[in-house]
Amino acid sequence: MAKLSPLGLLKSRAFRLLQYLALAAGLVAVPLITLPDLDVPARVLLNIVLWCCLAVFACELAGKTWLRSKSVQSESHYLRSSEGVIDLLAVLPVPLALLIGIPASTAWLLASLWILKLAILVPGLSMLGRVIHHEARALASGFIIFLIILVLASVALYLLERAGQPDKFGSLPLALWWAVTTLTSTGYGDAIPATLAGRIIASIVMIGGLGVFGLWTGILATGFAAEYRRRDFIRNWDLVTSVPFLKNLDPPAVIELTRMLRRVDLAENTVVVRRGRPGDCMYFIASGEVEVKVEPHPVRLGAGAFFGEIALLTGAPRTATVTTTAATTLLMLEVTDFRAFTAHHPELAKAVEAEAAARRNRSGAPKSHARGPRLVENSEKD
Amino acid sequence: MAKLSPLGLLKSRAFRLLQYLALAAGLVAVPLITLPDLDVPARVLLNIVLWCCLAVFACELAGKTWLRSKSVQSESHYLRSSEGVIDLLAVLPVPLALLIGIPASTAWLLASLWILKLAILVPGLSMLGRVIHHEARALASGFIIFLIILVLASVALYLLERAGQPDKFGSLPLALWWAVTTLTSTGYGDAIPATLAGRIIASIVMIGGLGVFGLWTGILATGFAAEYRRRDFIRNWDLVTSVPFLKNLDPPAVIELTRMLRRVDLAENTVVVRRGRPGDCMYFIASGEVEVKVEPHPVRLGAGAFFGEIALLTGAPRTATVTTTAATTLLMLEVTDFRAFTAHHPELAKAVEAEAAARRNRSGAPKSHARGPRLVENSEKD
Amino acid sequence: MAKLSPLGLLKSRAFRLLQYLALAAGLVAVPLITLPDLDVPARVLLNIVLWCCLAVFACELAGKTWLRSKSVQSESHYLRSSEGVIDLLAVLPVPLALLIGIPASTAWLLASLWILKLAILVPGLSMLGRVIHHEARALASGFIIFLIILVLASVALYLLERAGQPDKFGSLPLALWWAVTTLTSTGYGDAIPATLAGRIIASIVMIGGLGVFGLWTGILATGFAAEYRRRDFIRNWDLVTSVPFLKNLDPPAVIELTRMLRRVDLAENTVVVRRGRPGDCMYFIASGEVEVKVEPHPVRLGAGAFFGEIALLTGAPRTATVTTTAATTLLMLEVTDFRAFTAHHPELAKAVEAEAAARRNRSGAPKSHARGPRLVENSEKD
Amino acid sequence: MAKLSPLGLLKSRAFRLLQYLALAAGLVAVPLITLPDLDVPARVLLNIVLWCCLAVFACELAGKTWLRSKSVQSESHYLRSSEGVIDLLAVLPVPLALLIGIPASTAWLLASLWILKLAILVPGLSMLGRVIHHEARALASGFIIFLIILVLASVALYLLERAGQPDKFGSLPLALWWAVTTLTSTGYGDAIPATLAGRIIASIVMIGGLGVFGLWTGILATGFAAEYRRRDFIRNWDLVTSVPFLKNLDPPAVIELTRMLRRVDLAENTVVVRRGRPGDCMYFIASGEVEVKVEPHPVRLGAGAFFGEIALLTGAPRTATVTTTAATTLLMLEVTDFRAFTAHHPELAKAVEAEAAARRNRSGAPKSHARGPRLVENSEKD
Repeated sequence: MAKLSPLGLLKSRAFRLLQYLALAAGLVAVPLITLPDLDVPARVLLNIVLWCCLAVFACELAGKTWLRSKSVQSESHYLRSSEGVIDLLAVLPVPLALLIGIPASTAWLLASLWILKLAILVPGLSMLGRVIHHEARALASGFIIFLIILVLASVALYLLERAGQPDKFGSLPLALWWAVTTLTSTGYGDAIPATLAGRIIASIVMIGGLGVFGLWTGILATGFAAEYRRRDFIRNWDLVTSVPFLKNLDPPAVIELTRMLRRVDLAENTVVVRRGRPGDCMYFIASGEVEVKVEPHPVRLGAGAFFGEIALLTGAPRTATVTTTAATTLLMLEVTDFRAFTAHHPELAKAVEAEAAARRNRSGAPKSHARGPRLVENSEKD
Repeated sequence: MAKLSPLGLLKSRAFRLLQYLALAAGLVAVPLITLPDLDVPARVLLNIVLWCCLAVFACELAGKTWLRSKSVQSESHYLRSSEGVIDLLAVLPVPLALLIGIPASTAWLLASLWILKLAILVPGLSMLGRVIHHEARALASGFIIFLIILVLASVALYLLERAGQPDKFGSLPLALWWAVTTLTSTGYGDAIPATLAGRIIASIVMIGGLGVFGLWTGILATGFAAEYRRRDFIRNWDLVTSVPFLKNLDPPAVIELTRMLRRVDLAENTVVVRRGRPGDCMYFIASGEVEVKVEPHPVRLGAGAFFGEIALLTGAPRTATVTTTAATTLLMLEVTDFRAFTAHHPELAKAVEAEAAARRNRSGAPKSHARGPRLVENSEKD
Repeated sequence: MAKLSPLGLLKSRAFRLLQYLALAAGLVAVPLITLPDLDVPARVLLNIVLWCCLAVFACELAGKTWLRSKSVQSESHYLRSSEGVIDLLAVLPVPLALLIGIPASTAWLLASLWILKLAILVPGLSMLGRVIHHEARALASGFIIFLIILVLASVALYLLERAGQPDKFGSLPLALWWAVTTLTSTGYGDAIPATLAGRIIASIVMIGGLGVFGLWTGILATGFAAEYRRRDFIRNWDLVTSVPFLKNLDPPAVIELTRMLRRVDLAENTVVVRRGRPGDCMYFIASGEVEVKVEPHPVRLGAGAFFGEIALLTGAPRTATVTTTAATTLLMLEVTDFRAFTAHHPELAKAVEAEAAARRNRSGAPKSHARGPRLVENSEKD
Repeated sequence: MAKLSPLGLLKSRAFRLLQYLALAAGLVAVPLITLPDLDVPARVLLNIVLWCCLAVFACELAGKTWLRSKSVQSESHYLRSSEGVIDLLAVLPVPLALLIGIPASTAWLLASLWILKLAILVPGLSMLGRVIHHEARALASGFIIFLIILVLASVALYLLERAGQPDKFGSLPLALWWAVTTLTSTGYGDAIPATLAGRIIASIVMIGGLGVFGLWTGILATGFAAEYRRRDFIRNWDLVTSVPFLKNLDPPAVIELTRMLRRVDLAENTVVVRRGRPGDCMYFIASGEVEVKVEPHPVRLGAGAFFGEIALLTGAPRTATVTTTAATTLLMLEVTDFRAFTAHHPELAKAVEAEAAARRNRSGAPKSHARGPRLVENSEKD
């Protein structure tokens, strides 16, 4: 039914919504269909839902493959990228399983692979992969400590408890199962040491489990902090150099500022600052447009402009409400960083003050002091 | 009974205490009233307590609404602020539920919403919100990994265990329940895999749970550290610039000092330093007043003064006890930071030494050396 | 039996050992005496042990009180210090309990307060207290989130499960008990939600529990890192300024070096570096004495000297074994920090090289190059 | 069968593989042999596997001992090193146990000590040991808090619950067992307090457990971050100074760069960068060789050269695929760090640009601008 313009369809908002809907519906329907006491109508309904979801994903896969094959400059093949593999895993396994004769109730379990599609939707996952990659050695060390405690503890418990509880600790694999549930602090309670020595060793295992856990956490926290700083820097660098006002600073200052700014992506018609609220940051517009609601008539600011600086310079509350008129990317500079930065680079503070004063004059406000603390935060930039 | 001056009443210490008391009493009474074997007098008593608490919260709501409506300059409506919503949720639900015919024992459960009032009392909660907001993407990545492990593990366990334990793993929702309790390391022990393959997968899930947990912790630790630094800086900046002695430093030095100082809020009649104790910090008075208990007659120091510097300069123990005479805000500079700061900015050390010497002369102490190591820590500032 | 010289006795090594022994014996005996099936001889023996421990602690308390009362310059009373209170709690409760007629088996449980003596032995505990004190607000925020989840979840579970499991969720206190065991991921498994809605809410509670846990960990990690830096700085500062070689550096360099050095306390006759091992740090002697085992005859180095620098300058393995001849405090400078420091402060590297060369000449080694890579690491300092 | 050339055999890849295989087979066979319902053929097979593993480890031990005894310059004895002790523990215990008459099923449990061999394979474990060593005092403080909560909580629960549940809380050791499982959040559920007071104390213990856990995690995270930085610095320093291009920078710049570079070890025939992919880092070759697949004929770059700089200078995607032709160690400089470094040290950027331009000219590319954005990333270095 959508053979005419697959390109437009695939990129349309409606199809995106349909994808999300199919994913949500599918991930709810898969568990429900396994309920043993379903009546026939419900089972039929769930099957329809699942087939529809599969159809949506198949359309998506076909569309993406067709689009990518058309774009000549892309050299890497879509179906060999991680996204392509996940899309294939979403579409092929269920029909294949049905074809080779696996009963439907089992075959549809393969639809649980749809959960992998979440990994495409969230961009942060690749960052996580980098952290785990960089810290692989340290994490492996922690895992080996885990294994050593596990094996030695389960041998000890097997020796101590096999006589008293042969059904729980009668072989080393059973003792290993106990050790895993204990060392991860899961504690099912299906196997519990009964001898004094066994309980003392179990206590050491539990405390050791906390230690291993703490180790992993520490390693991941350290790695994550480093990776986060790095990613923010890359994302901000291009934005900073796209603001004429900022890119004229000398290079070390640009580096410093890039580390301080925080990117904010806003949809259309979002309120950025609200009049009368306390203000603790100013904004540079990297792309998009905002409207400043000032008294005579509202003014619009485009990419490269800044606003919200009065709250930083005077400590007064916000003097005007600012809303976005299009999807806008802002760079937020917090008061902490503004003060720290301008202490070492007073030229930014001067430039901000000069531009703010110039704008006030141009917008015809006779004397900002005469109007008391309610200054116009920003005027039109032309 | 307090219709005459709601303003005074609301701001009074007694009403604050009453609020805390009502909150504590209410949060104890709500669980107690659900006990099935209560006798009639106890039930009556608890009902009276609950109605009293409700009355206190209603008075608070009415008073705050009335006060805010009077103050013209406030533009944002109180009842639409988060504080107002919480106050409304504390007062309205129970009467409304009783009105529409819900039995009292169930209606009073809505009084558990009073716990939300704790969120108003503690200011740090907004900071937490900021951390979660800033780290939302990273936390979402961690959550998606959690979901992927959850779904794949429960499908595997459902396939492996449904034959042997149909009551525990007989459907995917049951297997998902097992996976959640295992992946969060809760480990109720109501559903336990019995097959070897099931137990191996369960072990991987447990270890993966520790990893996801470590991930969240690492993200939150990183975000919290950044937010904490930022908030302290903002709080300290205004205090530092209110101390004449400090604000004359050059801007980079003020920034550095702002990062080092720690704000200390003290009530009236609190001992700040005690004579004879080792001293590892000095204090600047941002607001309030302290009394230095020196021999001839105690002296008082007001906002802008400093004390405790002798312990830093000489390493001797505290030479006098200092107590606050009013609610006082101090800025504490630890010996670590004092030394690090004065190494780069010797002018502060010199100024502190000069002022300390000047004070000794003015207060008539003939020669501080003659009195041995027991120097007066601070003298009157005029 | 030790009336003659309590001072000598209290400070003696033997009495210290006796204290540790009494603490260990007491903490083992207290649990054992509660075993219900003890025979009479064992009970008598344990009673003797406990009374002996109590006698040791009483002697310690009496001795310390007497010593402190003699030392006039100490103004703070021993029995009001935290150490004194712990010592009192170790001695008084058991006899008092026996006097007022509590049966011996219960009275001796008060001897479990002896565990508090561990807090005196380990100095790091006060640091922990500082961290918790500084982060109190943030930790309280985390605790309030914990409480809000706890109360709302238990109300929901009470409503959902009270019909099906009146013995597990039949009142709000029972539901709160379930919520605590679940939110802390303890998971006893005594109360388990059975309805679908209850299990979904329980899953949210479990995941929320991980979040709260991560929050606390993040706050404590941040606070601990700051406090650790601060304490090390204070401990190292006095040591650095006691080494003549280091204290002549300009103040910013001293600050930097203080942050880099790590204090090492060693007992008599401990091997510090071993010949032939790779070396990645050098040492400054803050106090004590070491012996360098060089060929003609070993030389001794006292406070203010340094050794181990050749491994840093040349990358060769350790050229001589160095052992302490008395209790010694060393300041360790790792190769990382040595290189980073000397990059900005080349004077230290030059001074180290000059002194090393001078020593070689003085100790009569004709040409260090002639002897190949086995240089004497340090020679006598006079 | 390998008496002829033990040296070659021990260092050969085949023997390494055999070792890994023996370790894996042994660690699987040890648990299996304890299964009570094994039939005779399986038991015989497992015994053969275990004896083979033991033989491999014995050969390894003999070979290493013989090799080390030959190398005169090594002064430390192999069998007294930690590696030697682990190798001995892998070989001796089982035969010794069989000799003194322990039944085979028990004696083979000692083969679980083979797990310790994992600690040799992973180099990161020594770093972990350093962290724990450095943070020993802080971790001990956390452990003492753990012990104090443990003892006081179990005394309280013993008093409160012994009347109601004498089989669960009838003695202090039983109560201690409950406290350990609860404080570590394991929660077996075998002993559960039933009184109100007992449950309130249990709740405090559970929350305290989270706190202690957070404390340990915080300490380990802090220590790990410091140790990690230190180790990377040492590993990178020698590599940086082996690249002629980098070691001519002034010392503070070398220090800074050493902190930024990340070491990457690659096997032969590994793709380093792929044409058309976005590039966010450049590489310096510390050792080994890479081949740049450029159009006329591929060029090779050896130790001291760099590549991948065009993506950093222009932001264009990778212009050529680069693969290693031998085992290669690279130093990766990320775009973040490249920009931060060249902002303060513009000489590196200039040198990189100059060398890149020179190479293009030498390799005969007439004008790189003429060919559009597809520049050769690197040309031959002679």
